[in-house]
Amino acid sequence: MNVTTATTGAAESAEDRVRAAYARIGEVDRPEVWISLLDEEEALAAARRVDERTASGADLPLAGTVFAVKDNIDVAGFTTTAGHPGYAYGPKESAPAVARLLDAGAVVLGKTNLDQFATGLVGTRSPYGKVRDAHRPDRVSGGSSAGSGVAVALGVVDFALGTDTAGSGRVPAAFGGIVGIKPTVGLVPTTGVVPACRTLDCVTVFAAELGLARLVAGLMSGVDDSDLRSRPWPVQAPLGAPPRPRVGVPDPAELVGMAPGWVTAFEAAVKRLADTGVETVPFHVKPFLEAGRLLYEGAFVAERYAAVGAFVTSPEAAEDLDPSVAAIIGNARGLPAHQLASDTERLDRLRAEAREEMTGLDAVLLPTVGEHPTITEVERDPIGVNTRLGTYTNFCNLFDMAAIAVPAGETADGAKFGVTLAAPAFSDHVIADIAERFLPGAPGAVALPPSVVPLVVVG
Amino acid sequence: MNVTTATTGAAESAEDRVRAAYARIGEVDRPEVWISLLDEEEALAAARRVDERTASGADLPLAGTVFAVKDNIDVAGFTTTAGHPGYAYGPKESAPAVARLLDAGAVVLGKTNLDQFATGLVGTRSPYGKVRDAHRPDRVSGGSSAGSGVAVALGVVDFALGTDTAGSGRVPAAFGGIVGIKPTVGLVPTTGVVPACRTLDCVTVFAAELGLARLVAGLMSGVDDSDLRSRPWPVQAPLGAPPRPRVGVPDPAELVGMAPGWVTAFEAAVKRLADTGVETVPFHVKPFLEAGRLLYEGAFVAERYAAVGAFVTSPEAAEDLDPSVAAIIGNARGLPAHQLASDTERLDRLRAEAREEMTGLDAVLLPTVGEHPTITEVERDPIGVNTRLGTYTNFCNLFDMAAIAVPAGETADGAKFGVTLAAPAFSDHVIADIAERFLPGAPGAVALPPSVVPLVVVG
Repeated sequence: MNVTTATTGAAESAEDRVRAAYARIGEVDRPEVWISLLDEEEALAAARRVDERTASGADLPLAGTVFAVKDNIDVAGFTTTAGHPGYAYGPKESAPAVARLLDAGAVVLGKTNLDQFATGLVGTRSPYGKVRDAHRPDRVSGGSSAGSGVAVALGVVDFALGTDTAGSGRVPAAFGGIVGIKPTVGLVPTTGVVPACRTLDCVTVFAAELGLARLVAGLMSGVDDSDLRSRPWPVQAPLGAPPRPRVGVPDPAELVGMAPGWVTAFEAAVKRLADTGVETVPFHVKPFLEAGRLLYEGAFVAERYAAVGAFVTSPEAAEDLDPSVAAIIGNARGLPAHQLASDTERLDRLRAEAREEMTGLDAVLLPTVGEHPTITEVERDPIGVNTRLGTYTNFCNLFDMAAIAVPAGETADGAKFGVTLAAPAFSDHVIADIAERFLPGAPGAVALPPSVVPLVVVG
Repeated sequence: MNVTTATTGAAESAEDRVRAAYARIGEVDRPEVWISLLDEEEALAAARRVDERTASGADLPLAGTVFAVKDNIDVAGFTTTAGHPGYAYGPKESAPAVARLLDAGAVVLGKTNLDQFATGLVGTRSPYGKVRDAHRPDRVSGGSSAGSGVAVALGVVDFALGTDTAGSGRVPAAFGGIVGIKPTVGLVPTTGVVPACRTLDCVTVFAAELGLARLVAGLMSGVDDSDLRSRPWPVQAPLGAPPRPRVGVPDPAELVGMAPGWVTAFEAAVKRLADTGVETVPFHVKPFLEAGRLLYEGAFVAERYAAVGAFVTSPEAAEDLDPSVAAIIGNARGLPAHQLASDTERLDRLRAEAREEMTGLDAVLLPTVGEHPTITEVERDPIGVNTRLGTYTNFCNLFDMAAIAVPAGETADGAKFGVTLAAPAFSDHVIADIAERFLPGAPGAVALPPSVVPLVVVG
């Protein structure tokens, strides 16, 4: 598996890498990225401990890398706020996902800003400041893993952790022009993560390079008994993509809500994918988008109330509560359980339709987002703009799919454009292999004759 | 697999078998068993068609058998009432589970009485009459698959179909002194079944003999795309029990709500099981019973409202509505979705505890029920008695377990006593093999030395 052989692009020593990171933090001047940032001296001390381990012969796959962690994931020594100062607590230990990376030699610099309680895709729903896009600061960074995405996109850290329920680990990747891996639900333990929708939440990773992102995702994965939704890698899971993958591509006419010129960017991405020898196959995106709408319009949002509703609706929360987050989670209180039951049935029907659409496909390709809103646009219509940003991401966890968001050039209006490869649960290596062919710098893919029989078929 | 080699005990011709069945129907004089019963002439015509197929060389594994179907499962040519005349509809086709048995040569005689909308474990919640126990008519038959259980226990039919959400396919088996197989959720399609709790419902089979019950369960099983919850048999599923199965047995002190003398009957069953060479191992039943209480006390009952709530709370339903059923389903309307979310989390925690208890076990053994109430007792306390009857059955589908209820002699007070073998999803053949050793007439099991390594381990 490529994850273990990927290059990390690590610096020669962890200490040098930390110094460079703090220099860059000063340079970029984006204080809203961080909710807590380690004092440089402390980070240097941690780096020296890594260098000592390496010197003593330890083989640390992440030695020489620095990373940031979204502030709804526990890291020992930092408070966890989930974007609300009144909610803050000091965790006794790091989330298992984080602990595995520290063990592997990565140095954590701090905790990043997010849409409060991971409820949003914009990056502006936070009392710690609206997170500006890395490249076009009048625009949103995307969220909810806002600070993590920007910290990577600006080259401050080598990688950063996010979480993803509706698209929070993919939308910021698209705007930042970086890679975002959203593993299959249950592969990376969510113990020590403040739940958004407990049954759908994933820990994700952002990195500039796919190789490092795969390495990190691989290191974080693995059953943890403290995570009630932890799932083992099934024996029949495909270990990689077939030589000539079949990837579903929607008719451009089915792509709703795309800004002017963005469909052209998508078509260019499809062409580039086809040029690598991937067979592109038309599929209908309708059931995917319809399921996506259920995530916020249906009763699934009740899971958010179950997770943090008691706090959000308490008087002590009022002062720093984001009004959109307050409305979404507060309104979820009154949803009836029988609607959750019937929405689950509707979702089952849509999943069956989607499965039908994916028959014979190794993955589907979609735009990650269809526009890049300004901060002003979000201020004017905070719910509407946010909803639009989830069009192509919301369905993923509801359908139990793995996804990777990858950069795909720029649009005519100068925005970073991103596409997402998605496939059924445990196809993580399939989509990563296909993403690898697609990305610049990938070894030139050879178009195989269509008669070549795929070695692995997605179940 | 034994299911395909089991003997059916079938009559020489289907026609003879049907005649004998109608003679027996007259003899037993239990009109409350049936909601619809085929005219004898029509049944004979169906039987002759089976005999003709056999004569033309068709190999029909169920030729010469007759069966009954619970009236919440569609059979073409019969109305489906689910126990309420106002709800009745005429299905266009038979449920796939039924169609597979008709294809295999079984002749269906009619549709059986049930606790309305499969909401109950007593067998008395029906405008079609309270179903009396086969052996002790002052007692309840058990439900909700009441008529199906009694039709088998009285020897009217060879087998009968039930459904099971909370224990409806097991409790009537216990009182009837017969076998009840509740397959893993998703193995037998539930298309054409009126939902109780859609995500938990199973089609079950009652028979006097385990061999026939296994044969029928096997024939009904198999993915059907029209069932959104259909599941394929996983590649790593165990195909049978190891030579020396390890079966968890609770400390008698943990067995709550057992009538006087019933613990003694359970202890005798444990001894009998151990005598077959099964290794009995203590386990704690607490998380199982706690999860069971969630089924009706928690928000899962909202699935019942989602399924039939609109009808149950409509004016047209009022006349024939059972008051207990009306209260249970009607009250479910007001349950909040966030409670369903938090109950699901609580269930996840209990499932983890239960998994821990089952580590290294091939199955667990429990009493199926702990008492046999009279009809008068149920009339006095319809909810309380019903709740008690689910003590040892409710957890099963919530924990995604397969179960088989088997007869285990009689109690000192003259009741049939039954035990249930339960094991994680897809262990259906494991528990059936263990049940086979346990039942009278099983080939004498040889106690193997404990050093023998099991060939198959339950995942």
